[in-house]
Amino acid sequence: MAKTTRGNFFEDFAVGTTFRHAAPRTMSVGDIAVYTALTGDRRPLSSSAEFARSLGFEREVIHDLVVFHIVFGKTVDDVSRNAVANLGYADVRFVAPVYPGDTLRAETEVIGLREASSGKAGVVYVRTRGYNQKDAEVLSFIRWVLVNKRDPATRTGASEVPELPRSVSPDELPVPSRLSLQRFGDLGWVTGSAYGFEDYEVGERIDHGQGMTVDEADHTLATRLYQNTARVHFDARAMAGTPFGQRLVYGGHVISVAHALAYSGMENVLHMAAWNGGSHANPTLAGDTLYAYSEILDKADLPGQSGLGALRIRLVAAKNADPAEEDVPRKVTEDGKERYDQRIVLDLDYWGLIPRRKALA
Amino acid sequence: MAKTTRGNFFEDFAVGTTFRHAAPRTMSVGDIAVYTALTGDRRPLSSSAEFARSLGFEREVIHDLVVFHIVFGKTVDDVSRNAVANLGYADVRFVAPVYPGDTLRAETEVIGLREASSGKAGVVYVRTRGYNQKDAEVLSFIRWVLVNKRDPATRTGASEVPELPRSVSPDELPVPSRLSLQRFGDLGWVTGSAYGFEDYEVGERIDHGQGMTVDEADHTLATRLYQNTARVHFDARAMAGTPFGQRLVYGGHVISVAHALAYSGMENVLHMAAWNGGSHANPTLAGDTLYAYSEILDKADLPGQSGLGALRIRLVAAKNADPAEEDVPRKVTEDGKERYDQRIVLDLDYWGLIPRRKALA
Amino acid sequence: MAKTTRGNFFEDFAVGTTFRHAAPRTMSVGDIAVYTALTGDRRPLSSSAEFARSLGFEREVIHDLVVFHIVFGKTVDDVSRNAVANLGYADVRFVAPVYPGDTLRAETEVIGLREASSGKAGVVYVRTRGYNQKDAEVLSFIRWVLVNKRDPATRTGASEVPELPRSVSPDELPVPSRLSLQRFGDLGWVTGSAYGFEDYEVGERIDHGQGMTVDEADHTLATRLYQNTARVHFDARAMAGTPFGQRLVYGGHVISVAHALAYSGMENVLHMAAWNGGSHANPTLAGDTLYAYSEILDKADLPGQSGLGALRIRLVAAKNADPAEEDVPRKVTEDGKERYDQRIVLDLDYWGLIPRRKALA
Repeated sequence: MAKTTRGNFFEDFAVGTTFRHAAPRTMSVGDIAVYTALTGDRRPLSSSAEFARSLGFEREVIHDLVVFHIVFGKTVDDVSRNAVANLGYADVRFVAPVYPGDTLRAETEVIGLREASSGKAGVVYVRTRGYNQKDAEVLSFIRWVLVNKRDPATRTGASEVPELPRSVSPDELPVPSRLSLQRFGDLGWVTGSAYGFEDYEVGERIDHGQGMTVDEADHTLATRLYQNTARVHFDARAMAGTPFGQRLVYGGHVISVAHALAYSGMENVLHMAAWNGGSHANPTLAGDTLYAYSEILDKADLPGQSGLGALRIRLVAAKNADPAEEDVPRKVTEDGKERYDQRIVLDLDYWGLIPRRKALA
Repeated sequence: MAKTTRGNFFEDFAVGTTFRHAAPRTMSVGDIAVYTALTGDRRPLSSSAEFARSLGFEREVIHDLVVFHIVFGKTVDDVSRNAVANLGYADVRFVAPVYPGDTLRAETEVIGLREASSGKAGVVYVRTRGYNQKDAEVLSFIRWVLVNKRDPATRTGASEVPELPRSVSPDELPVPSRLSLQRFGDLGWVTGSAYGFEDYEVGERIDHGQGMTVDEADHTLATRLYQNTARVHFDARAMAGTPFGQRLVYGGHVISVAHALAYSGMENVLHMAAWNGGSHANPTLAGDTLYAYSEILDKADLPGQSGLGALRIRLVAAKNADPAEEDVPRKVTEDGKERYDQRIVLDLDYWGLIPRRKALA
Repeated sequence: MAKTTRGNFFEDFAVGTTFRHAAPRTMSVGDIAVYTALTGDRRPLSSSAEFARSLGFEREVIHDLVVFHIVFGKTVDDVSRNAVANLGYADVRFVAPVYPGDTLRAETEVIGLREASSGKAGVVYVRTRGYNQKDAEVLSFIRWVLVNKRDPATRTGASEVPELPRSVSPDELPVPSRLSLQRFGDLGWVTGSAYGFEDYEVGERIDHGQGMTVDEADHTLATRLYQNTARVHFDARAMAGTPFGQRLVYGGHVISVAHALAYSGMENVLHMAAWNGGSHANPTLAGDTLYAYSEILDKADLPGQSGLGALRIRLVAAKNADPAEEDVPRKVTEDGKERYDQRIVLDLDYWGLIPRRKALA
């Protein structure tokens, strides 16, 4: 039994500990095809090698979210195998493009620990970095998870909460160095939209207007594609004995479905540069139908980029209620406490890069 | 809301309007693998690079039907987002082979409009062409769809029905210019059959003798792979309120399943050259088991091709009844009207290219 | 009807007959991605091109089991289309690595025939060999299947049982000629485990500690990916009339799921060299949750290999009972007869190659 990974419990973590996660992964056009089949995503930087090359990239890129899921998946055995909940993300940066043929690996440092008042679990704060085969960083993120304690009876007293950036400053947004919009004007038809940076207003809301029902096959295929080993996604027999009654959908698949639905109305947001934060507000189960809307939270110029701007976007997903057709408040107040409406499953705050109108012309 | 595509209504179309559809797509070996997993197709031109090269192709080709589904998928947002029914196809030509690495895009011209007598909808006739990254045409087809009107109360009077070719003449069948059968004799074992052009008789019927049950995962994965955005295939919650009660299977997936089943008995039909017509006779839903048979409608020589002939084939798919074991008439007459038997889900009339016996020897 | 393959019946086989199976298949990174999505497998030789190259391989290899499933799938139409049961495997050798881009084909020789006492069926023993496009053998295996007779009333008297090797001798285990462990020490983090050859003891048992529920989509997608045409896996309508009541999961998918679960605890077993035997002890149906454990049956040095040893491993999979948590005997005795516990679905006896501790240092 000792040889089998059982994952770490709260007591096993110490601030400063670093994990070099097992099982690097070579990305391929196979991953692009499977991801398309799982989400229907049409982002042209991943779908069209021609378009990507026209914008200065080597070829089609691996979708930002696939990079995230793969790097995240590597961390599960060490970080979140015994996690009760994935509490949040901060300072997520998509540092460099990943191409088919690149091999990804991941490292994680523990940056904070806070025992829960109950004594049964504790919050583990980690910084994870993904690297390619040239040891160039491609992704970096902070996440914090509630991890069970091995021994609920013994207090650890851990209470080291890191300072978490509330957002990524526009000055620090990674812009792919090879990105060039000189030929974008001729390619405006590619994305299917003529709306550029100037056409989005702070406070504007875009209902994406399609629903997608998640089946067991969708999320289990997706989560295995990412080699994510968390038991809650795969063992229906074990989950039957939990309050959920069935396998939980990996939160990352919810992000991917919402993001795919959000292509309609945000077609020229070419790339996710960073996430300021994110929350899996409520669980998603197979059979749920997901809908999404986006809100423009902020707009920013980018240093040295005359053709490109950044939109700060809140991507919200709801289950079994279409926010375009009925009122689905993001948060509700109950007994004086604010919490997510129980139909909200995702609240993601990210920066997206979008050409200015002149580049589209 | 304005930024989100809601698709065009009948009133939005005018004869002569051309759409350059968004989201080009680079095809890959990943698409081949996913398609194989979705259908079990064994056509050797797509499955074996060695076989394809032996016949003069650069490498394994993207399956004819995948090319069709990808090009078709691109047109949905502009043409059929508000379609009630996909009524038919004509003059479908598979003009040139598509290889992994090729990028497909699509353009559509409106060629006819006819308001329905009810005034609620109208038939839109379009010609769609698919192109590769060198702007070479790879596929061309006419389809007509019943599209809802935005305003059922106001008549448009549109009544411009194009002349539709009832079939593609054998003289006009596209034959891949690189196709050479000189080495086919040594490779006869590859397809698993010794039957050539001369072995099929007009009027002959081949029952393909296997059934395949369609699950929700099959058609949703397939339809998303093709980046087809039609709501009826994805939103189980919305579909629960329709007479179907559940998501509709994309008709193209039915064609693919029937065609995969039809390998057995038609192994040397190497390539679909053209469709003369096609009809999704009845809807298919997850849980249905599909069976298929083929009828030889005609045989034709091909100009300048001594080793190759063309079979005109009617591919029929039935649901939940095996036409090999029970009588499933294609059409029935009820109240003096001829309609499809309700178990028939596909009636496709196509030309397939097949070596003559001498090439097989 | 004559053109459609109905497969061979027991009477159609003769010892010495050789089949050259149809439909060769070019393997690709698409197959790797789909396999990962179906199983969650993390074996680094298939997942990481960097790791594979560091160990002397050309690039990432096609997973041993994918090679097996593809070659096996090719044989179904000729060998087991009318099989009642897949009885066993012997002398399975993974002779040479297969890379993306390689094209696989298969040949089978009938090596034995034994009519069942009932007269309704008979056991067909075959030796199958898989080859790549250079005609180099990549896989070889014996299997025996119970095949229906066309005419149960007429006795054939066939009773030619081949001598089956009870195991593959360690001297004969194929070791990839390019495999070099010189750089493995630096790459120890890749697999996620520090356990080498010396750390496993004969008699040791490793419970892999995760469960995976099999859905209809998993096994049908997998079995179609392998172009396996056995009706029992695909036609739910036909299977509804059998004692199983639903489609049977392809036994090879059970091996793949068990093997993927078995990564945890056996991380440094880099490659399957051979199977000594294997049995699909009981059927698996969609909805079953699979668990796995491994037992070390033997250990062996390999001639001329100072850094590498071989573990003889029994991989056992159980359904709907976790052998790590409850007592699930492999076999039980009932009425004086030994048979598999009805929860056991797989009993596979194989040799795996694993670096010695010094190579890991």
